[in-house]
Amino acid sequence: MANKVQVLYDFSAEPGNNELSVREGETVTVTNQNIGGGWIEAQNSRGEVGLVPEDYLELSKPSPLTGAGTTTAPPSVGNVAAAPPPDLSFFDAFAPASTPAQSQTSNGGGDPWSAWNTDATGGASNNWASKPEGTQTGRSAAPDPWGAQSHPQAYQGPGAEEDEWDDEWDDVKSSGYAESESGEGGAFQRGGAQGTAMKISLNKFPGFSKSGPELYLLAKQLVKGSQKLSIYMGEVGPVWSYPDNQLDCVVADPKKGSKMYGLKSYIEYQVTPNTTNRPVNHRYKHFDWLYERLLDKLGSAIPIPSLPDKQVTGRFEEEFIKMRMERLQGWMTRMCRHPVVSSSEVFQLFLTYKDEKDWKTGKRKAEKDETVGVMIFATIEPEAPDLDPIEVEQKCDQFSRFTKAMDDGVKEILTVGQEHWKRCTGPLPKEYQRIGKAFQNLSSVFNSSGYQGEATLTDAMTAAGKTYEEIALMVAEQPRKDLHFLMETNNEYKGLLGCFPDTLAVHKAGIEKVKEGDKLVATSKITPQEKVTMAKRVSTMSYTLQAEMNHFHSNRIYDYNRVMQLYLEEQAKFYETIAEKLRQAHAQFTTM
Amino acid sequence: MANKVQVLYDFSAEPGNNELSVREGETVTVTNQNIGGGWIEAQNSRGEVGLVPEDYLELSKPSPLTGAGTTTAPPSVGNVAAAPPPDLSFFDAFAPASTPAQSQTSNGGGDPWSAWNTDATGGASNNWASKPEGTQTGRSAAPDPWGAQSHPQAYQGPGAEEDEWDDEWDDVKSSGYAESESGEGGAFQRGGAQGTAMKISLNKFPGFSKSGPELYLLAKQLVKGSQKLSIYMGEVGPVWSYPDNQLDCVVADPKKGSKMYGLKSYIEYQVTPNTTNRPVNHRYKHFDWLYERLLDKLGSAIPIPSLPDKQVTGRFEEEFIKMRMERLQGWMTRMCRHPVVSSSEVFQLFLTYKDEKDWKTGKRKAEKDETVGVMIFATIEPEAPDLDPIEVEQKCDQFSRFTKAMDDGVKEILTVGQEHWKRCTGPLPKEYQRIGKAFQNLSSVFNSSGYQGEATLTDAMTAAGKTYEEIALMVAEQPRKDLHFLMETNNEYKGLLGCFPDTLAVHKAGIEKVKEGDKLVATSKITPQEKVTMAKRVSTMSYTLQAEMNHFHSNRIYDYNRVMQLYLEEQAKFYETIAEKLRQAHAQFTTM
Repeated sequence: MANKVQVLYDFSAEPGNNELSVREGETVTVTNQNIGGGWIEAQNSRGEVGLVPEDYLELSKPSPLTGAGTTTAPPSVGNVAAAPPPDLSFFDAFAPASTPAQSQTSNGGGDPWSAWNTDATGGASNNWASKPEGTQTGRSAAPDPWGAQSHPQAYQGPGAEEDEWDDEWDDVKSSGYAESESGEGGAFQRGGAQGTAMKISLNKFPGFSKSGPELYLLAKQLVKGSQKLSIYMGEVGPVWSYPDNQLDCVVADPKKGSKMYGLKSYIEYQVTPNTTNRPVNHRYKHFDWLYERLLDKLGSAIPIPSLPDKQVTGRFEEEFIKMRMERLQGWMTRMCRHPVVSSSEVFQLFLTYKDEKDWKTGKRKAEKDETVGVMIFATIEPEAPDLDPIEVEQKCDQFSRFTKAMDDGVKEILTVGQEHWKRCTGPLPKEYQRIGKAFQNLSSVFNSSGYQGEATLTDAMTAAGKTYEEIALMVAEQPRKDLHFLMETNNEYKGLLGCFPDTLAVHKAGIEKVKEGDKLVATSKITPQEKVTMAKRVSTMSYTLQAEMNHFHSNRIYDYNRVMQLYLEEQAKFYETIAEKLRQAHAQFTTM
Repeated sequence: MANKVQVLYDFSAEPGNNELSVREGETVTVTNQNIGGGWIEAQNSRGEVGLVPEDYLELSKPSPLTGAGTTTAPPSVGNVAAAPPPDLSFFDAFAPASTPAQSQTSNGGGDPWSAWNTDATGGASNNWASKPEGTQTGRSAAPDPWGAQSHPQAYQGPGAEEDEWDDEWDDVKSSGYAESESGEGGAFQRGGAQGTAMKISLNKFPGFSKSGPELYLLAKQLVKGSQKLSIYMGEVGPVWSYPDNQLDCVVADPKKGSKMYGLKSYIEYQVTPNTTNRPVNHRYKHFDWLYERLLDKLGSAIPIPSLPDKQVTGRFEEEFIKMRMERLQGWMTRMCRHPVVSSSEVFQLFLTYKDEKDWKTGKRKAEKDETVGVMIFATIEPEAPDLDPIEVEQKCDQFSRFTKAMDDGVKEILTVGQEHWKRCTGPLPKEYQRIGKAFQNLSSVFNSSGYQGEATLTDAMTAAGKTYEEIALMVAEQPRKDLHFLMETNNEYKGLLGCFPDTLAVHKAGIEKVKEGDKLVATSKITPQEKVTMAKRVSTMSYTLQAEMNHFHSNRIYDYNRVMQLYLEEQAKFYETIAEKLRQAHAQFTTM
């Protein structure tokens, strides 16, 4: 074809992806325009051949072979592409990885790590104070948390994951789940894909968006035949009914899969539950689907923490994969620990589907489930007398205060921790390194003295200098060994606490409705019997909230006990190792 | 007298000195104008009575009772007085305390700690590179190292110590040394005092200012009957003859004395040599006198490090006294260790004078000593063959390079150390404190949960938080325990190395003179015999330099061995203590 074209934007190839890095203004030769998926094979002036996003090239006309929805690269992508390739150090990968809060619309952004850069109190109170009661809750597409740092990968802007999701969604092949994405479906389905994504987001919160808690409070008929969720009175108050054997699972063995003739690749994780001990494979988007289902079904009663955020850059960078896996593991562990979540049909499907058909059937069933939103309360049966509405309100307020205070406390730790992380990985090791260099420099000056018999001193000083260089490295490495887990746990709790305003708002709206009871009866909007039913049902909501809080508390105690122990243990080891190294350095000096 | 006057400048009272703080523009009532010494007793509007410097008040006419030389407070003093009173933290006292380099005139400033604030290399090379060979060397009055931070104490600007020195100098009473300053001499002698100070500084470097090394090289007749200083060939080359018993002394027990009816006070140190074991008392200015004498007598051959600098602020502040004493001890120890210094008559006088009369006689004798400047070489007898002039020059150059390199190395440590000090006493403990507070805050939130049985966790978290607060304190305190000594040693060496350019310049000038030998003979400026004598004498100078360098090297090895061991030992202990505290905090958590 020998068609020479000009490059419109800088594009940096993802290693191992058969891509070709090109610079704006460069001329390349198109060697294969029939690749599909928005990619073109091209050759540069140095003879290197590889794939370049079609939109990055000034082609005379759109290729008829490429699908719709891929014809324009937004200028912003081009601008972003011109930015220097990000240095994906561990910290970079760590800091901006964002788990969007459950209620992004009202929180105005999905980057929970943003609090790391702001005053903890300020950030925290804004989130909480500005939240109107019973506000509409919806999860919009996350704004790109990477901003200018984003790696210029075509089709990976916001919505890209949905595209991939959808192309797979509608094109599952019978040739095994993992391979299903390798088919031709990919890019050609993009147009339709966007539509599906839209439909999903409109349907996300039927309970919240349609009617609020009165849907449940005033329902003529509660859900029939549904599995009932029990709440008992335990030592600490209302508690969920916990299974005898705690469900757990291991997320491991991330594997790179590919589709579109190997042009695009993705990561598949192996998830092995302790019940069947049989691994199933899931991509990130499957976790995301599960999250959406759980949010739909249980989100009104149970805070469902967000997944670790989607991340565009460095998807195949080892460190990032490890990080995402670690966070998916954390999320799954938390979900497994919850008796209501872990026993839910959709969660069980996710962990134990037998084959592709099983998965597909289960998925469709889960999406058709009508016991979602506030109707979940209809399946809850507290085995205790109804609560007084005043007591209900008090409990709600108490939990509200506690979660708000804990949110502040957690954010304070995140803020301080981030600063400490920066110091430990930035100026502090640099200073130790400079101390080390200064000792070594002086030692080498001493070596040039021409004076006899000072080799013991100069050797020892050099060793001391090297010890400080080693300490510098240790200091820089240490946060990954201890602070990392403290940060991760607190970050998880920040996400979890961020769900409570919504959960509490549902509860609060229920209380308000009951308060209006007399007025509603007087204006004949409800019957006196309905008023009684409402009071009974709001009592159920309160038991649920209390069971949930108690679940939260017991997990919190467990988690903080564990993470504080880990942190202090690793810190102690760290200082012991430094002391040991210094003792060794000390021993090299002669005692005079 | 009830004379109301206006205050011209802000004045901050020195605590415990019967002084009264006043503000510019304030009106005070003069209650006693007959105090003397430039002080006025005044009462402010709140009824407080105390002493104010006369020059700070707008008196209608100079009081006939106060002495000359105290009538004008320079405007700069007033401006300085308006600065906020300095917060004399340990570090503040530490950092600006300045030991003026031996050659302040050419170095352009007497604050050796200034290098702490500049690039070590830059500062170092300037000092050395800009030094013209054989430059005139003189010790001018040190510029106030405190600058705008200076405490506005009347009569304590540059020259104030000389004033006090001189009033004591001429008015020693027989009623015991310590009490001699309590007499009436004080302020009334100031006029004459200034003259004496002038005379001293003109006579300071007769050897340098009058004639350079040729005074010695071409001297018709060398000093008669003087004690000879031997140089032997040791294992490492030329070495001084060391005494069998190393002289040492202890500087201790600083005591506050006073004079002028208790209005002005000073500190007297007890100096006890290991030879007599009998303490003698000396004020700072006596040390300074000793320094001047040693510089006059030995400075051309032996680098005499400067004393710790005079310090205006906080003279009675405990920390400062301790610091000055420590530095005087360091200086005395170094002097005692030097065989030539320690055996000198003036040094022995300083350590072992029997009574006031003995001291006075010895002092006058020392000041009349004519074997000063380069003539010291006339008393040196190397017991080895004359050196070849080329070898002499090579040795000189080698030492020059070494001392320059070490000066750079030492300054690098000081620069890095100062930054480390700042970090350890500033942001780092603040961060640990914030971590500690964050743990404690979260713990107290947890306490408010209303959930049963989490006291173990909250207690442990509080303890962990307190541990980090303790660590914060430890971190902030630690530099005084280890870095301080590393800094002090390097600072001492910086001062010592700062003397070498002068010592080397004398040597270099001698070499240059010898090189000119043939020309001088040809032009009949010297005789052929004198040329031979010059070569012989420059050889003596070179032996001296080598003995001095070998003395320097052996002390350097000892000092750095010692200080590095101390530093590493204390650092190891520090990290061990932190680790131990963390282990204790860790143990408080329940193992789950």
